[in-house]
Amino acid sequence: MPDVQQGQANGDPEAMERSAAAHAGGVEVSDDWRAWLDGQRRRVDTEISKHLNALKAGMHPHSPLLESVEYSLTDGGKRLRPVLLLESCRVCGGAEESAWPAALAIECIHTFSLIHDDLPAMDDDDLRRGRPTNHKVFGEAVAVLAGDWLVAHAFDLLSSEAVDPQVTSALVQALAQGSGDMIVGQGADIAGQQQPTDPELVQFIHRHKTARLWEAACKLGALSARASADEIKAMAEYGCRLGLAFQISDDLLDRTGTTEKLGKRAGKDADESKQTYPAAFGIAESHRRARAEIEAAVAAVERFGPNANRLRGLAWYVIGRDR
Amino acid sequence: MPDVQQGQANGDPEAMERSAAAHAGGVEVSDDWRAWLDGQRRRVDTEISKHLNALKAGMHPHSPLLESVEYSLTDGGKRLRPVLLLESCRVCGGAEESAWPAALAIECIHTFSLIHDDLPAMDDDDLRRGRPTNHKVFGEAVAVLAGDWLVAHAFDLLSSEAVDPQVTSALVQALAQGSGDMIVGQGADIAGQQQPTDPELVQFIHRHKTARLWEAACKLGALSARASADEIKAMAEYGCRLGLAFQISDDLLDRTGTTEKLGKRAGKDADESKQTYPAAFGIAESHRRARAEIEAAVAAVERFGPNANRLRGLAWYVIGRDR
Repeated sequence: MPDVQQGQANGDPEAMERSAAAHAGGVEVSDDWRAWLDGQRRRVDTEISKHLNALKAGMHPHSPLLESVEYSLTDGGKRLRPVLLLESCRVCGGAEESAWPAALAIECIHTFSLIHDDLPAMDDDDLRRGRPTNHKVFGEAVAVLAGDWLVAHAFDLLSSEAVDPQVTSALVQALAQGSGDMIVGQGADIAGQQQPTDPELVQFIHRHKTARLWEAACKLGALSARASADEIKAMAEYGCRLGLAFQISDDLLDRTGTTEKLGKRAGKDADESKQTYPAAFGIAESHRRARAEIEAAVAAVERFGPNANRLRGLAWYVIGRDR
Repeated sequence: MPDVQQGQANGDPEAMERSAAAHAGGVEVSDDWRAWLDGQRRRVDTEISKHLNALKAGMHPHSPLLESVEYSLTDGGKRLRPVLLLESCRVCGGAEESAWPAALAIECIHTFSLIHDDLPAMDDDDLRRGRPTNHKVFGEAVAVLAGDWLVAHAFDLLSSEAVDPQVTSALVQALAQGSGDMIVGQGADIAGQQQPTDPELVQFIHRHKTARLWEAACKLGALSARASADEIKAMAEYGCRLGLAFQISDDLLDRTGTTEKLGKRAGKDADESKQTYPAAFGIAESHRRARAEIEAAVAAVERFGPNANRLRGLAWYVIGRDR
């Protein structure tokens, strides 16, 4: 299918959808999936705003953190992790209400990671999604604490009444281990900047720093649906592969994108001698590996049949973000 | 009882014990409580070391964080929160095994808070318990991440097999809300440095920054024991009052202690125009308030009779730490 691969590399959406259909074994990806994705993002945005308003109503005026938390939680993020979580729950036959606390929780963890990663002692970024980073606006102390608070709050969300207490323990474990590994990955990423490019280290970093939280998103969705062990495993595999593809694609975008388009400084990874896929494997091989991960992700959800078509669409979308 | 109060103010241990007995309504505080306290600390130290060894065995060599986590988790801390948690569980009739994960979890949260509070952007401390602070040894990036990891790991511990899944949700909520409020308190403390001394703000900071985690410790112990709602409430009240007394006593020690004795720089609060009890209420009134909180803590556990004698001993110990 050389034309299909060409389509993906060029980020042609129609070719990607044909490709997704082809990889899904001929199952057609629904035409409305892009509208659905936008709709889901807006729903996540709305739920986050509602949640923040409820928090503000209960928060003492002495607390300076919520403004900083709100700044980063409402910065136009793609909401891919909560959307994935909700969709994984639906595909596994779960009721959406039971998955919303986990969906907000995973976005809290993701947002915490962005705030802390941007700190001067870490990646030292001034720009995130086209806006000044949290610490540039609120100062380092508040940025550190806002991130800390988001982690604690994520687990508070998992203990909320809407969550089935029978699955709380599994949800907490999946989120705690996914978050812990993500933090370990960030540590390896920072430490790796002083080391020569090492393909094995690159894979360790990407798996931990990015893929484990995507894996957690899908696992939390399946757990919220009280899915079978096999279904949970399939969803976790899908999320992990998708996360790896996402990070490889992110590395590639840093090489080929513009600062304006990315909303953050382009070419930064190379400047900092980061451990990246293009540095370790070259650009063409990185594209090939991203596609291989997507194919593996799509294969992992084969058991769910046409019900998982949106997950297939999301998979191909992830590596076509540069269009 | 002027002699009892005198004894407390002077930190005379025998007078404190007489006082504890008096406040406990004539119930004698066991003579061996100090030996018991030392023994419990050593047990917590041992469990933490065992846990760290298990983590190290499973940790990938690419992870630079565990050394930093270990440095701060094994720095000779007093282990008051885990000891309180285990004792609250025992007093409520619970089996100790079920409370150990929560005991380690609360020490992880406490340790995280110390690492982040010491950061240059926060309290900027070079010394903690007589040793260089985490970021002085491992750098700021690793210190931030080690703290982050400890929060995630605390919740991982609460999802471990030893924990009764029937109480996981309540444990997670108590720890998440206690931690979240502690972080809010630290935020208010930092922000308060630029403001005139405000008694109401001092109380907000102390309640959030310190008392809420002590409250959580006792609540987690009672929850681990599957105690009744009234017992959980009584333990939470005890922990909160004790935490307030501890923080007032800490403020007083900063005024009257030496750097050598404290293991951290003395007189720092005043230098930084921190919101403290002595600044807001004066030294004599701060002593009086600390004692009043201890009396309220002791009163809160009256229902548990002689079984709570060690908690009474701990209460009086907390404000006599300068002896």
